Amino acid sequence: MINVIDTHCTPITAASIRLSNDEIGLLKSGLSGWEIDDKKSELHLEKSYQFDDFTEALAFTNKIGKIADEENHHPTILTEWGKVTVTWWTHRIKGLHKNDFIMAAKTDRLAS
Amino acid sequence: MINVIDTHCTPITAASIRLSNDEIGLLKSGLSGWEIDDKKSELHLEKSYQFDDFTEALAFTNKIGKIADEENHHPTILTEWGKVTVTWWTHRIKGLHKNDFIMAAKTDRLAS
Repeated sequence: MINVIDTHCTPITAASIRLSNDEIGLLKSGLSGWEIDDKKSELHLEKSYQFDDFTEALAFTNKIGKIADEENHHPTILTEWGKVTVTWWTHRIKGLHKNDFIMAAKTDRLAS
Repeated sequence: MINVIDTHCTPITAASIRLSNDEIGLLKSGLSGWEIDDKKSELHLEKSYQFDDFTEALAFTNKIGKIADEENHHPTILTEWGKVTVTWWTHRIKGLHKNDFIMAAKTDRLAS
């Protein structure tokens, strides 16, 4: 298990490559409740959080938006009544980068 | 074509029923760009809006949240970089109610 929560995203360049399965396994071991989802043949990192109503869910969505801007790495966020589903992946490499696990850890911290 | 944009949602009760296909067709004729989507055997009303970046997309998500609270009817909102997808339906009746078309029209007005 490795802890990435206090690190920051690195810029994605043409030289950036997707994480290996071993690297994904290692980074995932540092998280709780995140699922690896294979969307459109790309691996995505996804988790849902429960809230009491729409207002609280939307407030969480906005918190995620703030850290996404700070790190210049943006997820998709599905906001619904009492629930937010966050999906991190790195569009440019069509899969998972260490940045996604950094942001997943930071997302968990927002929810705690 | 009928115009519902300046009307308000009515409370959903045990007596509320889903719109008929004819009613859906009539109400949909008053909207532009909305698709009827059959999710989990329930009809949903869905539309995507394009934006310049994540910040603008999230701002639109918040505008939708505000009218959703005002009308006490809440959609799912998928927020991503440069795009927001809004889905209206009425959970309690497992399908579409006039309220959903009212909210779709109001959502369009927010985007204009």
